[in-house]
Amino acid sequence: MNLTVIEYVLNRLQEIGINDIFGVAGDYAFPIEDAVCENKSMRWIGNCNELNASYAADGYARIKGVAALSTTFGVGELSALNGIAGAYAEHLPIFHLVGMPASGVQKNHRLVHHTLGNGDFNVFYQMSQHLSCAHAVLTPENCIAETERLITTALQERRPVYLGFPSDYAIMPVMADKNVDKPAIPKSNSGSLSAAVTAILEKLNASTQACFVLGILTARLGLAQQVQTLIDKTGLPYTTMFMDKGVLSESNPTYIGLYNGHLMNPKVADFVESCDCLVGIGAVLTDFNSGSFTAKINSENRINILSDHVIVGSAVYPQVYMNDVLDQLNKLAPTLNHKVIQAEGLGSPLLNEQDKITAEYLYPRLESLFREDDIIIAETGTASMGLGFALLPKNAQFHNQTLWGSIGWATPAAFGAAIAEPNRRIILVTGEGSHQLTAQEISQFARFNLKPIIFVLNNDGYLIERLLCKDPEAYYNDLPQWNYAQLPHALGCEDWYCQRVNSCHELDAAINMAQSSDHAAYIEVVMDRYASSELARKLGESVSSLYSF
Amino acid sequence: MNLTVIEYVLNRLQEIGINDIFGVAGDYAFPIEDAVCENKSMRWIGNCNELNASYAADGYARIKGVAALSTTFGVGELSALNGIAGAYAEHLPIFHLVGMPASGVQKNHRLVHHTLGNGDFNVFYQMSQHLSCAHAVLTPENCIAETERLITTALQERRPVYLGFPSDYAIMPVMADKNVDKPAIPKSNSGSLSAAVTAILEKLNASTQACFVLGILTARLGLAQQVQTLIDKTGLPYTTMFMDKGVLSESNPTYIGLYNGHLMNPKVADFVESCDCLVGIGAVLTDFNSGSFTAKINSENRINILSDHVIVGSAVYPQVYMNDVLDQLNKLAPTLNHKVIQAEGLGSPLLNEQDKITAEYLYPRLESLFREDDIIIAETGTASMGLGFALLPKNAQFHNQTLWGSIGWATPAAFGAAIAEPNRRIILVTGEGSHQLTAQEISQFARFNLKPIIFVLNNDGYLIERLLCKDPEAYYNDLPQWNYAQLPHALGCEDWYCQRVNSCHELDAAINMAQSSDHAAYIEVVMDRYASSELARKLGESVSSLYSF
Repeated sequence: MNLTVIEYVLNRLQEIGINDIFGVAGDYAFPIEDAVCENKSMRWIGNCNELNASYAADGYARIKGVAALSTTFGVGELSALNGIAGAYAEHLPIFHLVGMPASGVQKNHRLVHHTLGNGDFNVFYQMSQHLSCAHAVLTPENCIAETERLITTALQERRPVYLGFPSDYAIMPVMADKNVDKPAIPKSNSGSLSAAVTAILEKLNASTQACFVLGILTARLGLAQQVQTLIDKTGLPYTTMFMDKGVLSESNPTYIGLYNGHLMNPKVADFVESCDCLVGIGAVLTDFNSGSFTAKINSENRINILSDHVIVGSAVYPQVYMNDVLDQLNKLAPTLNHKVIQAEGLGSPLLNEQDKITAEYLYPRLESLFREDDIIIAETGTASMGLGFALLPKNAQFHNQTLWGSIGWATPAAFGAAIAEPNRRIILVTGEGSHQLTAQEISQFARFNLKPIIFVLNNDGYLIERLLCKDPEAYYNDLPQWNYAQLPHALGCEDWYCQRVNSCHELDAAINMAQSSDHAAYIEVVMDRYASSELARKLGESVSSLYSF
Repeated sequence: MNLTVIEYVLNRLQEIGINDIFGVAGDYAFPIEDAVCENKSMRWIGNCNELNASYAADGYARIKGVAALSTTFGVGELSALNGIAGAYAEHLPIFHLVGMPASGVQKNHRLVHHTLGNGDFNVFYQMSQHLSCAHAVLTPENCIAETERLITTALQERRPVYLGFPSDYAIMPVMADKNVDKPAIPKSNSGSLSAAVTAILEKLNASTQACFVLGILTARLGLAQQVQTLIDKTGLPYTTMFMDKGVLSESNPTYIGLYNGHLMNPKVADFVESCDCLVGIGAVLTDFNSGSFTAKINSENRINILSDHVIVGSAVYPQVYMNDVLDQLNKLAPTLNHKVIQAEGLGSPLLNEQDKITAEYLYPRLESLFREDDIIIAETGTASMGLGFALLPKNAQFHNQTLWGSIGWATPAAFGAAIAEPNRRIILVTGEGSHQLTAQEISQFARFNLKPIIFVLNNDGYLIERLLCKDPEAYYNDLPQWNYAQLPHALGCEDWYCQRVNSCHELDAAINMAQSSDHAAYIEVVMDRYASSELARKLGESVSSLYSF
């Protein structure tokens, strides 16, 4: 007996490294959920809602390279779209498995629940196509070929794919198709590859000061080790931009610190912009990556190695894949004895007379807490902007949703990361405004016996918005007042260490408790209304460049 | 000086009855939020997240007829789509105001936050078009004409519309356009109208037993009073189906009870199906309306008056509007001395020896709590299925998202209804699984000093799914265990009466406290794992008809 459609798909997902399916159960998706629970190598992770599930899948994919999410028709899948869009923007391959009404219900345009009442069963599938690099409605006939196509595309483009399962088809045996080979992994055009590598080497060899700018795509494509080899071989300095922070360990001797245009780290900006050869690897100059477009890079000095093409100065080399370029460079690149500047961290926490928790105290204090192998999830807003310039210990990872920037992402993403890496320490730092969007997901940590350290920065409103908008005191930046430190217990996190802190000394004590405790910790950090990180302030000052060009 | 684009739109929305804008603040939408806060007749209602905001707008529109929601580009608007889709399915005109990046940013395809990083600024607008009956990106030039078109379409089709505001255009003065008249409200074709009314009257006059089946569209189109007049004039009995419950007061003497095919209320089914003239007014036979398609109505006996056409037997009369038909019938319809059966409620609460809170105790007990003018919001699942057959006091409203059926809807929808009608009592009844999706929104009631009575039915999992799926004990139906009664205080609802009840006597005591208290109440009702309402059990038994036709 052949496997059923859903069994076949789950087996293939497991083969590429997926053992956990995030989602919310729903009736049209029962065949998917049943199959997950019946598969001994798979685990169903039931989230509190579908948006949270999609964020959790995002966090999982950041750690494991791939993730899967299952939702039910209409109501479920639409709620997940924002998370899927974030994965699309930030190159995370999430397999979105959607349970659909049975094929006969669809063909007969029955007026069933979770539809718009107009007999249209295609509309949600069409909407999702905008946010997936490939998509299919699976049948017993097309299952094998389509599954391979979707997997190949997802892994190549590192973007979400959509798989629809009509509930009757999901449990039918696949029709074996002997003719289906796994789609070939595309190879670089050899002429183009060789020309690109030659151009890169020429520019490198002619340079007096070169520097790498590493982008998130290197990690997404699983090429971090090859990049590390290239750094070691050339001996060259490297930087990252905001979105790309920690893509390679920041403890390496040639790491020079974060480059954020001219908003922050002027030494790094001066160094980077004085280079006569800047080699980007998968880096993209977005607004928040470029210090609100204050980066000034002479395009003639610039090389960028992207996922499927290379740019050297004004020349573009198409059909050249990053892994092939790195392989060649690792054979042919010179060792260059160029200058390196030393990366700087945030320095010592600054105490003040009132013992208030200022940004100048908080972020350096958090930096000193980080240790080897930590996974730090920093929410969009002042929280990540404060932590972005911390210097991370060996192999510590830093995740932030810089491009998509959907507030609320961090809490469930931290949960997904914890599911992916239960043995590494997870540190979540979020503003309270962002936390309110998805806070219920902390109940999942306790349910799965995971022990994060969570910091909720309470500054009485959406601080980053106060800094960016016309009238900082406009009441749309206000929030309902929660008793955050009571929340974990209400959500069933019974044995967590929960503490509200109002002063630096209380913060220190709470951090010490959290570090020595065998339980998860949840620390509400009360700060002044405008206690903001330097980058957040500077973004506020440069706001016109963000909105009016 | 002309009004700005956003000022103009807000003024027009206010003229059609909108005084509150739900939403979550975000940078591209600052011009919208600034204008709302600066408008003395408008109020910004900042929700905890965008999905909750869209559900709140849904609840508001159910009470006020119209609602508005504002979200920011990409991240915000996508999170609201599920709620917008529900409003589309259930005919609620929500004006979705989306703040977009400035026109120049869009034209230059800048790589800014909240985009997919591919320079495409149209993609989210395209996605939303599937879920709106009309849509526009507003400019100073098109503002007046497009606003009128969108308002007219929204009010006619009673569906959501989408308004995009590039942030620079939003604050430019509108270009006055003297040529714009408000689009004409479409009128019935007089020949078709007269033929339809004649056919209806013939069928009515020839009938020995007629009955009205009232649908939600009568309320949505603001025609409840005309329907009441028609009922009074003809003296005929009327029923509603599930989605339509309470669309006309259930205290009227000719109300016969809820018709749910052959799953429930057999006396009503026998009565309805024995009629030789059934006059539907805006009623639709969906799965959950028809008792899982067990309704057996002879189509030759059937009249259906829909929003823009009439069906009599097998004849269709197009271009005939419901209000015109009702006007004619209110002049011409006969008084018919037909039989009426008496609507029955749930009877007395059934105590049991263990004092356990069973469905047979709970739902009749809740029925006895309801009083005149209450607004009851019942969540999808066993909760609404238990309450659907309660008999409501005069003018009490009952709201459930029967067709779209997105769990999590009820909690924020109850908040939206409370904002719309702060002086009526709001009773929310939700299962705990559904509540988990959107529970943070209860913090908003306290923030706006609203005093709902909330019942959270805790039966240790997604009960309706246990009843519908293959293996009721499959672990995908389990939930993280919350301490629900602690939740309001954690969420800042400081003075609420919160109580967990395990027995009928505790439930009675808590209800008495809630009714006599001057504060909001939140009662966690602990029930057995399978303590389900009769309809839920019967749906479980008829499950194959739902999934495999």
